[in-house]
Amino acid sequence: MSVVVQKYGGSSVATTEKIKKVAETVIKKQKNGDKIVVVVSAMGDTTDDLISLAEAISKKPDKRELDALLSTGEMISSALLAMAIKDMGYDAVSYSAYQIRMKTSGQYGKSLIEDLDASKISESLDQGKIVIIAGFQGINEYGDITTLGRGGSDTTAVAIAVKLDGICEIYTDVDGIYSTDPRKYTEAKKLKEIDYEEMLELASLGAQVMHSRSIELAQKYGVPIYVGLSCSEIEGTVIREVNNMNMESKPVTGLATSDDDIAVTINGIEQNINILSNIFEAIGSRKINIDMISQTAPIEGKVNVSFTIPKNDIDECMEIIRQFAADKNIFIDKDITKFSVVGIGMKTTSGVAAKMFKLFSENDIDVKLITTSEIRITCAIKQEDKSKAINLIGSKFNL
Amino acid sequence: MSVVVQKYGGSSVATTEKIKKVAETVIKKQKNGDKIVVVVSAMGDTTDDLISLAEAISKKPDKRELDALLSTGEMISSALLAMAIKDMGYDAVSYSAYQIRMKTSGQYGKSLIEDLDASKISESLDQGKIVIIAGFQGINEYGDITTLGRGGSDTTAVAIAVKLDGICEIYTDVDGIYSTDPRKYTEAKKLKEIDYEEMLELASLGAQVMHSRSIELAQKYGVPIYVGLSCSEIEGTVIREVNNMNMESKPVTGLATSDDDIAVTINGIEQNINILSNIFEAIGSRKINIDMISQTAPIEGKVNVSFTIPKNDIDECMEIIRQFAADKNIFIDKDITKFSVVGIGMKTTSGVAAKMFKLFSENDIDVKLITTSEIRITCAIKQEDKSKAINLIGSKFNL
Repeated sequence: MSVVVQKYGGSSVATTEKIKKVAETVIKKQKNGDKIVVVVSAMGDTTDDLISLAEAISKKPDKRELDALLSTGEMISSALLAMAIKDMGYDAVSYSAYQIRMKTSGQYGKSLIEDLDASKISESLDQGKIVIIAGFQGINEYGDITTLGRGGSDTTAVAIAVKLDGICEIYTDVDGIYSTDPRKYTEAKKLKEIDYEEMLELASLGAQVMHSRSIELAQKYGVPIYVGLSCSEIEGTVIREVNNMNMESKPVTGLATSDDDIAVTINGIEQNINILSNIFEAIGSRKINIDMISQTAPIEGKVNVSFTIPKNDIDECMEIIRQFAADKNIFIDKDITKFSVVGIGMKTTSGVAAKMFKLFSENDIDVKLITTSEIRITCAIKQEDKSKAINLIGSKFNL
Repeated sequence: MSVVVQKYGGSSVATTEKIKKVAETVIKKQKNGDKIVVVVSAMGDTTDDLISLAEAISKKPDKRELDALLSTGEMISSALLAMAIKDMGYDAVSYSAYQIRMKTSGQYGKSLIEDLDASKISESLDQGKIVIIAGFQGINEYGDITTLGRGGSDTTAVAIAVKLDGICEIYTDVDGIYSTDPRKYTEAKKLKEIDYEEMLELASLGAQVMHSRSIELAQKYGVPIYVGLSCSEIEGTVIREVNNMNMESKPVTGLATSDDDIAVTINGIEQNINILSNIFEAIGSRKINIDMISQTAPIEGKVNVSFTIPKNDIDECMEIIRQFAADKNIFIDKDITKFSVVGIGMKTTSGVAAKMFKLFSENDIDVKLITTSEIRITCAIKQEDKSKAINLIGSKFNL
């Protein structure tokens, strides 16, 4: 009898009706012969409502108390789900963070799971109970309640699956992972499976389906994650280590775009790594996220450097750059779309970048900046070229 | 520096504005040089809202899960109050039941406080913090969250005051304890002080101001309780052991009435204590609360017995009685008001009952049933005589 840890997101438990629906689904799963642990998020808008309460009290709510406040959302939904299951004649029990010694460390609001004591969960499972866990929360070394950040319930679910040597199923309001956003590319295909690393790249490119830390944790312990639509028979996507055969057959698995960045170019910087590192350190110290750094080869001891930053941070960033370069040497390009393809097959298939750039050049798409990782290629292109590029690459690589 | 444990009821923390008001009041109190612990109830209707959620899930919500659910109400208000105090520049920290090891025993929904570990509270007080405690909840021997029943936050506050050797202040939406309900008797006087036992009798007669168990606990450990209006300078009432001088000077301290009962009379029962005890046992086994039992002297081996029960329980009660007596021997009187006077002075002052009955007889008030305790006299009278009786007794005993 294997242990299945299912996580249901806030939209799946938004109303008492939906909670009953989840109860039915969970009971059906248990009848299949599995031991079931369910991790729940807070109901629908509960977390936002609690934040509004806090903001009515203080413009900058104390972080320890905010975490104590927010943790109640998941306690409410977990108690209600356990009630619903018991009402249907099956045994269930809800546990919040301190009852399973979910130990966390790090900052309030984005703490990390250190460990948990799964003995209480195992015992209840052995008694035939469906165990409901309040996600998103833990107890730090001072005995304070901390939260794991938005989407943290995914990480709760994976951590429990790791401890119980089970599999993890994340149920949400989308029916799986797509090669690219189906709203932007109607031909987008749902993936049957995707490698952890590909999923991490997609998540870092803004695919909101999963909490990145949950994928990292699953990868570390080799726990497969199924992502699918709540209370539905539609088949979703499995995130796991994908074997080489599959990798070779498809070099590009996913495609993602983002219009949230701006490109900054500084011309005529002394070719001295210290100067560049000083600039990036100064920008980084303001928590501004720098991406797509590229540097031209030096001419007469001077280099040109381009990079992207989030649009919102441009004013703060300019303040810093002016300490290093004259205004006439600073250029801002607001018209960029970050266009990325991701595929673990790139590790073994060469020529993906070449194919991509040839396609762009044949179709008059200018590439302004390029960065690559082992399994990702990202270009900055003009925003007007975005949908043309999605269609070209989508059809070329059969996404 | 003495420790003051203040408790604020749900109406005192019903909105974020009111929570800020409580924060200001508490800070002011701390500036007087006291160490402050604040116990809070859930905001306004939160508990009722949570119960509605549970009832939408199940007609008979599981009691363990209901307690887990309800406990979140106090966690929310305690975190918000701590935030409000910190926002005003003073240090504060909120603790929920498990953080102070508030141990409980007994049934879910009405558990009893066994003990608590006040070391975390003391430590925080020594650091100059105002400590906020989520009332109404504890953790039982299985590690489950339990609640103490409606009004249980009063008991939380007294228990902490006992542990910290402090005094207890209960803030609510009434400005103190009155000799009788001021809505029924406009001349009603607010008491400067009242003895624990008198307060217990008044509470058992339906005075909703205080949780009975909190008074018993305070009496057991000799902790005085101040009851007053939230965030106000109006002087309230102190519940404490009142000395003899005061007792002798005023035999009757309080007066209470209730229209919630019905009188049942069974005529012609065999004079056999077994039959009576069987009837009462059968009624009691259905959790029907029997009060004001009175039995006439036997005539020809037969006795008549009268007693009162809550109106709502009459159908269930009749089912039982019919097993013991014929319908023609059973009489129901719906027209009764339970009229009680309470005073610790009755222990030493005789003739209170005589004075009361003389007054009733002079004014044509029929007395249907009488029961007494050491410090209480209760009569059942006609409902139409209620306000006449309140005015007569109120003015006679200077209430």
